[in-house]
Amino acid sequence: MTRPVYFDCDTGVDDSMALAYLLASPEIDLVGIGGVHGNVSAAQGVTNTLRLLALADRGDVPVAVGRNDPLVGEFAGGAPHVHGVNGIGNIEIPATSAMPIGEDAADLLLRLSHEYDGNLEVVAVGPLTNLAVALHRDPSLAERVVRVTAMGGAALVPGNITPLAEANIAHDPEAAQAVMAASWPVTLVPLDTTLANVLDEDDRERLCTAEAPIVRAVGAALDYYFDFYVDEYGRRCSALHDPLAAAIAVGGMLPRVAPAVPVEVDVTDGPGRGQTVCDLRGQRLGPVDHPGANVRLVLETEGPLAPHMVERLLSLTAPVATVAIA
Amino acid sequence: MTRPVYFDCDTGVDDSMALAYLLASPEIDLVGIGGVHGNVSAAQGVTNTLRLLALADRGDVPVAVGRNDPLVGEFAGGAPHVHGVNGIGNIEIPATSAMPIGEDAADLLLRLSHEYDGNLEVVAVGPLTNLAVALHRDPSLAERVVRVTAMGGAALVPGNITPLAEANIAHDPEAAQAVMAASWPVTLVPLDTTLANVLDEDDRERLCTAEAPIVRAVGAALDYYFDFYVDEYGRRCSALHDPLAAAIAVGGMLPRVAPAVPVEVDVTDGPGRGQTVCDLRGQRLGPVDHPGANVRLVLETEGPLAPHMVERLLSLTAPVATVAIA
Repeated sequence: MTRPVYFDCDTGVDDSMALAYLLASPEIDLVGIGGVHGNVSAAQGVTNTLRLLALADRGDVPVAVGRNDPLVGEFAGGAPHVHGVNGIGNIEIPATSAMPIGEDAADLLLRLSHEYDGNLEVVAVGPLTNLAVALHRDPSLAERVVRVTAMGGAALVPGNITPLAEANIAHDPEAAQAVMAASWPVTLVPLDTTLANVLDEDDRERLCTAEAPIVRAVGAALDYYFDFYVDEYGRRCSALHDPLAAAIAVGGMLPRVAPAVPVEVDVTDGPGRGQTVCDLRGQRLGPVDHPGANVRLVLETEGPLAPHMVERLLSLTAPVATVAIA
Repeated sequence: MTRPVYFDCDTGVDDSMALAYLLASPEIDLVGIGGVHGNVSAAQGVTNTLRLLALADRGDVPVAVGRNDPLVGEFAGGAPHVHGVNGIGNIEIPATSAMPIGEDAADLLLRLSHEYDGNLEVVAVGPLTNLAVALHRDPSLAERVVRVTAMGGAALVPGNITPLAEANIAHDPEAAQAVMAASWPVTLVPLDTTLANVLDEDDRERLCTAEAPIVRAVGAALDYYFDFYVDEYGRRCSALHDPLAAAIAVGGMLPRVAPAVPVEVDVTDGPGRGQTVCDLRGQRLGPVDHPGANVRLVLETEGPLAPHMVERLLSLTAPVATVAIA
């Protein structure tokens, strides 16, 4: 039996790649998707998700709209300079008649946690608002979930939207703190590893010639995304933020250095707001788990993600019953 | 003409080594020393300083007692588990009749800044309380000082007394923020580099056989200090915190990677209190100075400090007119 996965995302360019990766992964079964504010509005992200699923002929996966605002404050407007105005690099994906389900994302997650009690895995690649709302509605959720794998935070590298804070966490620090503080095991995939895993132009070109339309769409969306990373890497390429979290959740990529350590999210209004405060003291001689720490911090992976990612995405076949996409 | 240096310290074991290094450095002239809370109380630190100076027959250097409490809160009791109860590894140094001067440390610094207007350099290896008090009394101080070189902070490595904060900064975040925000150039030497520079047992043994009594005292004091670092490095040795700041200030060790970047000290009451918030985004392709940033952050040095440190300390000769020390 494949493992049931709930995917929470703010569909974005790299979220799109993570989604395609999950669809291409025989180890798991995508049983529901929630949309959240972040790279784009929750509504725009859900639109992108529905269209990508339609491209893959996977309209069977229920998609729920989630929170468009963080627990404190309001949606900040997204990151059009990174992901494009529509979140997917300004590429056009055909509209679909598919609609989100009536439940909101938190209720979908709660329902799935009962349906797959003790088996459900959560992969979260946006702000953690929907997860926090679900925990707030029913704190026992944490007991029914096997693991939360979240892309977010920065431990020993600079942040990306403040000197210290990474965007997913910083867009809702209070929600992230609630998720870290809950009793479920969390695997946190921070900028430390996501920025160290890069997809290059030759990888992208392979995606653009894939058989599966969703993979070609991801390759096309990356064109815009690559421009953003020129300042970071000095060449057109991209970090693999959300795809790395997806691959670690699935098991396609293994963590090499991933100590379980106390992780607290800074919810002050100071310069550290939104940072992940990870206690990494005493790790010079090798990774040391702190007894009772429920957050495992992925600081190094077994190998570079790009080859595995490309291979798996190219393994997706074109759906039989879909219209060909240019 | 040698360069006049005011040295502010909480004399501790590594402060003692930094002091001996400054006394051994022909490039500079130690024109005054202020004592501050930190590793020990301000009074205990000054006692240690006076005795070390007497050992070196350098009673000519004026020593002033400074603040025993941070700007906010009270002296936290020091670090006897690191530096020993007396701050110098529980070794006995002969008492001296030398006394601190009547001025407090901030007034000494202010007076020296006029006496050596435009030439005075400041080396600070404890909490920055005295410097902040001096700035508060006369903000124009910053215009008369060539440079402040301070040991403190942690940029891309864990803190040492909290997950994020280094002791010197954390013991008085408000003072550190005032020092970073003033207009003088600051060279900040954080844990990133001080923990990467280690003194080993064979180095220590050479210090213990030095001609100069002050150097033998430093070697003896390190015995206790080495025990503390076993958990960090897996062997008896020590980081070179304050000595590295002294060597960089003098020019005996050159920074290799030291971008000028915005540095703010976290003065919230959150988990980041006392951390140095350094904006190191966009430095992947090499060090980039931020226009207008007055704090230069030393992230890498040209070479390991220990060989230079040992060589220079061993160059100190025994004073002619002092009593032999066992």
